[in-house]
Amino acid sequence: MVGVTLKKSIFAQGSYSFETSAAFKKLSQLSKTPYDLTQEGHLTPERIHRFVAHSTNWKLLYGTQRVDAEVMETLQQLAREANVFEKMHAMQGGEVINCIEGFESEQRRVLHTALRDFFDHPNEAKEAREAAKAAKRELEKLETLIYEIDKEERWTDLLFVGIGGSELGPKMLVLGLEAYQRPNRRVHFISNVDPDDVASVLKGVDLEHALLVTVSKSGGTLETKTNEDFVRRRFEEAGLDVNEHCIAVTGEGSPMDDPARYRQCLYIWDWVGGRYSGTSVVGGIALAFAYGLDLFRDLLRGAHAMDLAAREEDFSKNIPLLMALLGIWNRNFLHFPTLAIIPYCKMLGRLSAHVQQLDMESNGKRIDRFGKSVSYSTSPVIWGEPATNAQHSFFQMMHQGTDVVPFEFIGFKRSQMGQDMELFGTTCHDKLVANLFAQALALAQGQTSSNPNKFFPGNRPSSILLAEVLDPYTLGALLSIYEHKVAFQGFIWNINSFDQEGVQLGKVLANKVLNRIAGGKEPYLLGDAFLDELQQCD
Amino acid sequence: MVGVTLKKSIFAQGSYSFETSAAFKKLSQLSKTPYDLTQEGHLTPERIHRFVAHSTNWKLLYGTQRVDAEVMETLQQLAREANVFEKMHAMQGGEVINCIEGFESEQRRVLHTALRDFFDHPNEAKEAREAAKAAKRELEKLETLIYEIDKEERWTDLLFVGIGGSELGPKMLVLGLEAYQRPNRRVHFISNVDPDDVASVLKGVDLEHALLVTVSKSGGTLETKTNEDFVRRRFEEAGLDVNEHCIAVTGEGSPMDDPARYRQCLYIWDWVGGRYSGTSVVGGIALAFAYGLDLFRDLLRGAHAMDLAAREEDFSKNIPLLMALLGIWNRNFLHFPTLAIIPYCKMLGRLSAHVQQLDMESNGKRIDRFGKSVSYSTSPVIWGEPATNAQHSFFQMMHQGTDVVPFEFIGFKRSQMGQDMELFGTTCHDKLVANLFAQALALAQGQTSSNPNKFFPGNRPSSILLAEVLDPYTLGALLSIYEHKVAFQGFIWNINSFDQEGVQLGKVLANKVLNRIAGGKEPYLLGDAFLDELQQCD
Repeated sequence: MVGVTLKKSIFAQGSYSFETSAAFKKLSQLSKTPYDLTQEGHLTPERIHRFVAHSTNWKLLYGTQRVDAEVMETLQQLAREANVFEKMHAMQGGEVINCIEGFESEQRRVLHTALRDFFDHPNEAKEAREAAKAAKRELEKLETLIYEIDKEERWTDLLFVGIGGSELGPKMLVLGLEAYQRPNRRVHFISNVDPDDVASVLKGVDLEHALLVTVSKSGGTLETKTNEDFVRRRFEEAGLDVNEHCIAVTGEGSPMDDPARYRQCLYIWDWVGGRYSGTSVVGGIALAFAYGLDLFRDLLRGAHAMDLAAREEDFSKNIPLLMALLGIWNRNFLHFPTLAIIPYCKMLGRLSAHVQQLDMESNGKRIDRFGKSVSYSTSPVIWGEPATNAQHSFFQMMHQGTDVVPFEFIGFKRSQMGQDMELFGTTCHDKLVANLFAQALALAQGQTSSNPNKFFPGNRPSSILLAEVLDPYTLGALLSIYEHKVAFQGFIWNINSFDQEGVQLGKVLANKVLNRIAGGKEPYLLGDAFLDELQQCD
Repeated sequence: MVGVTLKKSIFAQGSYSFETSAAFKKLSQLSKTPYDLTQEGHLTPERIHRFVAHSTNWKLLYGTQRVDAEVMETLQQLAREANVFEKMHAMQGGEVINCIEGFESEQRRVLHTALRDFFDHPNEAKEAREAAKAAKRELEKLETLIYEIDKEERWTDLLFVGIGGSELGPKMLVLGLEAYQRPNRRVHFISNVDPDDVASVLKGVDLEHALLVTVSKSGGTLETKTNEDFVRRRFEEAGLDVNEHCIAVTGEGSPMDDPARYRQCLYIWDWVGGRYSGTSVVGGIALAFAYGLDLFRDLLRGAHAMDLAAREEDFSKNIPLLMALLGIWNRNFLHFPTLAIIPYCKMLGRLSAHVQQLDMESNGKRIDRFGKSVSYSTSPVIWGEPATNAQHSFFQMMHQGTDVVPFEFIGFKRSQMGQDMELFGTTCHDKLVANLFAQALALAQGQTSSNPNKFFPGNRPSSILLAEVLDPYTLGALLSIYEHKVAFQGFIWNINSFDQEGVQLGKVLANKVLNRIAGGKEPYLLGDAFLDELQQCD
């Protein structure tokens, strides 16, 4: 483990408070009359070209947000009052920021940026350098492993067993790069403790040609251990040499770190949260198996480039920070309780599920870094589906419901697989992007009508992320955008975005119920009542 | 088309208003001190056994909602004031309820219940009988078609092209019954106009053995026609007799109703909205191809049984109505803006996406049946993912976030595939249900702690739907539960749940942008500004 520095932290109590900041007061005032996008002459082509930011090869358009120059300046003032740049430096430099001051807490560094700090401008902090060295060592082990796997010419299927952050990120990344698939290589995710999950996956897989990767940092996640055991028994039943098939991704020294049971153990560390582990060997093994290690390196390169952009003090070059600020404007000043993430891209089908965890598990907190209850809203509900599908699903409510939902749209100049055709004078991809822009405009401007059912109130805000094409570099940068957006919001809300104490109580009670099912004597009458009701179902 | 009755409607103006009802006032009063689930002795085994309802083979547990006997009585009073039983009768009997009085509107019946009214207690209303007759005719055409397809012994893959309601319901149903799969039968859904969608599906399919089903009631849905054309060209390129592969599901007389282009045209009608079409031949053809027609009939039988339960005036036997009322309590009186639907069931992986459309497209409205703006909230944001996965994703925020999210959990006594194993003294399925009950309890009761990070506020409400196993009958009944829950909420909110004018504006603007891409002369400067920004991406 990396050593702990004891210098005075920029996160220390007293240096900043969200609600008493000068910017907060001014933003509260400004939010009484937010920019009216429906008014004639307000949403103009000039405005669209003016509210633009660039980071790496991504562009953010936010002219369809309810902001004007004064709001944007005050949001930037808020960022400076919250010392977000110093905090981002502290995080990427390896300060122990995963903690609640004065109370028992995880007391860890947060160094997912070190997982990809192998390229230009390496972080010079000692802790960051050590972490990057450890990450590089695992990447090299992964390279050797993939080389062996390829050489054995036997393996066609990877059974990837993990849950939560050990599944959502890797799955999003694997689905996101489908066009790069190597011949005869498939990755299957097994996550739910529902036995139908593993049974459904296994019925389509020839076990002789299947590797099993089990991902659990602690080495003791209930669902993951259960599913691993399920698959191992199937290997045994098929008469296979089980351990030859099994690979572990776990913390060094965990119960799973056992060369007698796995052909290889790859390591992750307590300075990488599950939801931030997409660029560790957790995501790496799935991507390298399916698409090759070079692709994974490109993805890391994109993520690293965005890590550097997140330290950029020119706001127009820092997309993660701008997205964080616009989110705070919508959440804390315009009081919108949810955020829809809508990629106009089939390949990003699980992006919203990934960001849902990333954001809600990180910032779904009700105490600040010092253990005090916050009196302002933190993480909104994050949800979404890819479009144009989503347009035919819930967009009715987006346009004409009683509640306003802010959007983050994502689009590309061209498709990933490059197969397209013209119909009625435009390609499929043309139709896709035309719909994206049309929705942003329709939501913002609305429509008047003498028929109340054809009236659209408008003023429903959105941002649009644009890039040329969803390639590995671009996807890595996108992953990093959301990681840093979440971190910045946590900095501004003054909360610890890196623990997840809220999942513990359910685990404790589940064990009490399980103990009753297993015939345990310790009474749990509430659990029994539910189990009785279940037993009576027929 | 079925003829239109002109009798005085129970939906007519003046007969009821949500906000001025006596029950509304009383509920507003009661909502100031909702039942406190965290208080010692409040959430008891007796309470869990008391707040239970039964419909068909489903059971609803709602002891973990913030209600007491008085709230439940007043919610029932609200239902009676809103004349929900008469309205449900009118709907199932074929009254023209899809309309906005005094304004141009769709003026249609709403008869998805007739799609499965072939079993006990058929609806006696003339319009319902005629609709059921038409539905039965198409079901018989489907039976003949499936018989032919089976006999030809050639078809292994069904390419199902549709979007919105023509995809979400069928996909949810197909995924929901995976254990019943016939050998060598696969259904693939193609929906997004993103060309990567169709390209990704087609790369894994042998076109010689593939049927194409195109679903569009109007026969003119942009995405669907585009994707159909894409697939047809591939058939041509492969030198196949295209029309032999193609089946249409469309309105009679639509541009797609063309026997020269399709080996069979199956019909749907204007009295079935897309989002309510799962039990029409739209869902039927996918289910019958994959699993056989008998299974589809069982599913219809379950849906029909729940249609009858929805007319039950004993509230403890009417799950859809109770769920509607609990939803209104949470939405309009406790003011929770979202609802999470969390099945503890891998097979229900797309249930929340289906209900998201069903509910938000139906009730995401801001005017009442008479064109007047409503001053109360209608459809919440509906979202969710299957558990236990969800527990490892966003449940941190559910337990300790600043906002409260009500839950609808769904669980089963046993798994669908029936493959399981014991580990640490309990099966995987035991672990699944133990987690379900533990979450409901943890959310409701919370936990006190001297460490603020281990404090759980509790009073986060949930209901639990339970059944023995997810078989076709049970899934049909579940589909119908949500259809009627949505209808009841629309009745109480006094809105038209059956149109979707909110999707029109986006279509108009998309065509304006597309026209610019195609080189059209009609100016659209805002569209041009976005297209310029996209062009500059590299």
